[in-house]
Amino acid sequence: MPVDLPPPNPAQLFPIAGVRIGVVQAGIRKADRKDLTVFLLDEGTSVGAAFTANRFCAAPVQVCQAHLAAGGQIRALLINTGNANAGTGADGLARARSTCEALAQRLGVSAQQVLPFSTGVIMEPLPSERIVAGLDTAIAAAGPAHWLDAAQGIMTTDTVPKAYGAQLPLGGRTVSITGISKGAGMIRPNMATMLGFIATDACIAPALLQPLARKLAQASFNRITVDGDTSTNDSLVLMASHQAGNLIIDSLDSADGQALYAGLLEVALKLAHAIVRDGEGATKFITVQVDGGANTEECSRVAYAIAHSPLVKTAFFASDPNLGRILAAVGYAGIADLDTDGIELFLDDVHVATRGGRNPAYQEADGQRVMRQSEIRVRVDLGRGHASHTVWTCDLSLDYVRINADYRS
Amino acid sequence: MPVDLPPPNPAQLFPIAGVRIGVVQAGIRKADRKDLTVFLLDEGTSVGAAFTANRFCAAPVQVCQAHLAAGGQIRALLINTGNANAGTGADGLARARSTCEALAQRLGVSAQQVLPFSTGVIMEPLPSERIVAGLDTAIAAAGPAHWLDAAQGIMTTDTVPKAYGAQLPLGGRTVSITGISKGAGMIRPNMATMLGFIATDACIAPALLQPLARKLAQASFNRITVDGDTSTNDSLVLMASHQAGNLIIDSLDSADGQALYAGLLEVALKLAHAIVRDGEGATKFITVQVDGGANTEECSRVAYAIAHSPLVKTAFFASDPNLGRILAAVGYAGIADLDTDGIELFLDDVHVATRGGRNPAYQEADGQRVMRQSEIRVRVDLGRGHASHTVWTCDLSLDYVRINADYRS
Repeated sequence: MPVDLPPPNPAQLFPIAGVRIGVVQAGIRKADRKDLTVFLLDEGTSVGAAFTANRFCAAPVQVCQAHLAAGGQIRALLINTGNANAGTGADGLARARSTCEALAQRLGVSAQQVLPFSTGVIMEPLPSERIVAGLDTAIAAAGPAHWLDAAQGIMTTDTVPKAYGAQLPLGGRTVSITGISKGAGMIRPNMATMLGFIATDACIAPALLQPLARKLAQASFNRITVDGDTSTNDSLVLMASHQAGNLIIDSLDSADGQALYAGLLEVALKLAHAIVRDGEGATKFITVQVDGGANTEECSRVAYAIAHSPLVKTAFFASDPNLGRILAAVGYAGIADLDTDGIELFLDDVHVATRGGRNPAYQEADGQRVMRQSEIRVRVDLGRGHASHTVWTCDLSLDYVRINADYRS
Repeated sequence: MPVDLPPPNPAQLFPIAGVRIGVVQAGIRKADRKDLTVFLLDEGTSVGAAFTANRFCAAPVQVCQAHLAAGGQIRALLINTGNANAGTGADGLARARSTCEALAQRLGVSAQQVLPFSTGVIMEPLPSERIVAGLDTAIAAAGPAHWLDAAQGIMTTDTVPKAYGAQLPLGGRTVSITGISKGAGMIRPNMATMLGFIATDACIAPALLQPLARKLAQASFNRITVDGDTSTNDSLVLMASHQAGNLIIDSLDSADGQALYAGLLEVALKLAHAIVRDGEGATKFITVQVDGGANTEECSRVAYAIAHSPLVKTAFFASDPNLGRILAAVGYAGIADLDTDGIELFLDDVHVATRGGRNPAYQEADGQRVMRQSEIRVRVDLGRGHASHTVWTCDLSLDYVRINADYRS
């Protein structure tokens, strides 16, 4: 059961003018499930993307990067679940390219104008012939209202579809933003991958899309962790169809640029948080906020040390305010000159530790109260500067081990 | 149940001339258990030590470092279980110092000649008065044959005592080495700490003890991980009583120096491995060896990425040859210019992956056979140099989560 994650609200999944979506059952790995999704993008749509930092990046990630680097307009995304096409070598690259070619041919564009995405079992050959066989139906079915279908069509072992939308006024027009994501760990056993697709009809200078996609990923999908494992296929794609009629945004520093970024970030965060809430075995949604650092990088190290500590994560699972574990994680996060006497620790509103030791006013009953909640904020103040960083994670439960130990059996 | 770890063989725990050990029940936390251990060292004994890198280091670690830095001869170690004296601030420091003073007074030495060690519950005041009350009995009971008692006297939630000894010929004499250790995770819930104490009667130049202790720690205790959490109290102490009559060893590069180091390393590795074999919930003992790196540091990063991956560890627990998880961990270990096409992966004698992909000759049945063993060697060849590094770890089991989630309840 995902943690405090309501199902997507169809009324909130706004169609994006210029973006049509087709979802079909192509029988890629299992019968009777939506497993092939195409995004068809009107001419004039700009695309930016951010990808996994894993050196073992999957074939479709490599093809995406090459097609984006070619610089042409991207006109379609082609997404399959059931097979990640990762760890598949030259054959995997050839199959990914062949599916792009098949879709491009049907659309009258070049193969480099298609971006491929795959998620599912790794180290097995991509059944590209089944993907190609499903393309005509997918194209014929394509329409602007199929966001929820697409959210279902990219799921692997996610327990719920993940979709979210927002609208905002921008230069006298209403701009829509809609996105979907999938993933229930940063990597799944054989079901690798976190994927996110966000589209807007806003008019944005094309050159802004790529930096904007990276900035959004840094602020959302790159700040979530279930188990610290980084997938081979992680991808976030941002599409702007330029059909809302707003005055073109050519800087994120303008008032309109800031408003648009805030809207995009809201959607990206909802989609990223949904992955943590649906994390493998998750029973708690935990925000780890580190303040008072000398720089963002050290705040990030401390935040991840806490978020990745199996001892901290099992304490959250047990609702046990075993807070020495959090301080110990701060201590080994790798800040060589850290003065532990300056450290403050809060659980929500409860001031647990002060000056590096137990707060004399702290009562275990207060810590216990917060630990029983399904959503918890851990806040550490390092007391050495003004930088901050926040990451989101879940607890480590018996079900996490069961899911990952039993998955293939 | 520890993994393939026979109980200590008393006949192998050689008395070390110049080292007497007293173990008593001081009622520090629980009745009817050995919880206070003193090592009394003859004049002329040299001591070296290595400590936790955690910035939240416990009061006894801080006192040890100050006493060693003072440069006088160390004449006694004072070790309690039941309370880690960590996260206890100025009061903890004062209590650690007061126990050193009490022992020093009884021995007619200075407080700075005593090293204190504590393990057990954290963030609770050290019951120093109970420690002091037990000192006279401990001193009176001290003798050279109490190594096994000491191994029991430093246990917290270890399921078995950990002790090992070796003898070797050195310059016409027989040199003895005996050691004990404790710990069942790099950190325990409230029961923090890995401790190791190794003594030898060999004659070694005193100036060599400190670098030798660090080198031994680097090659043994610093290469084991259960959950990646580094304790606030970890300590390794090396004592040389200089009573074996061998020609003094003033360089580790001499033939005798190399022989002695090999003997010490054998004991240190047995003691370090025993901690992993008795790791929380462990069902498998796993050696992770990374070869072919450009330097040791990158081999170490890859080895720890594998050893810390919850997905890899749960696959070992499930005896599931889910090998993409190992390749994915190699990929995200942080080697920016890693060419994955050069990577080879072996499970014991089974060649699983070649040139970064599945070895065409690999049969899952072979991987399955190795995964069912209680001891497994993972070997990765990065194919980019001649450096190597090895670490040891265990699997991540349901019992790990149960132990850490239920500990305080």
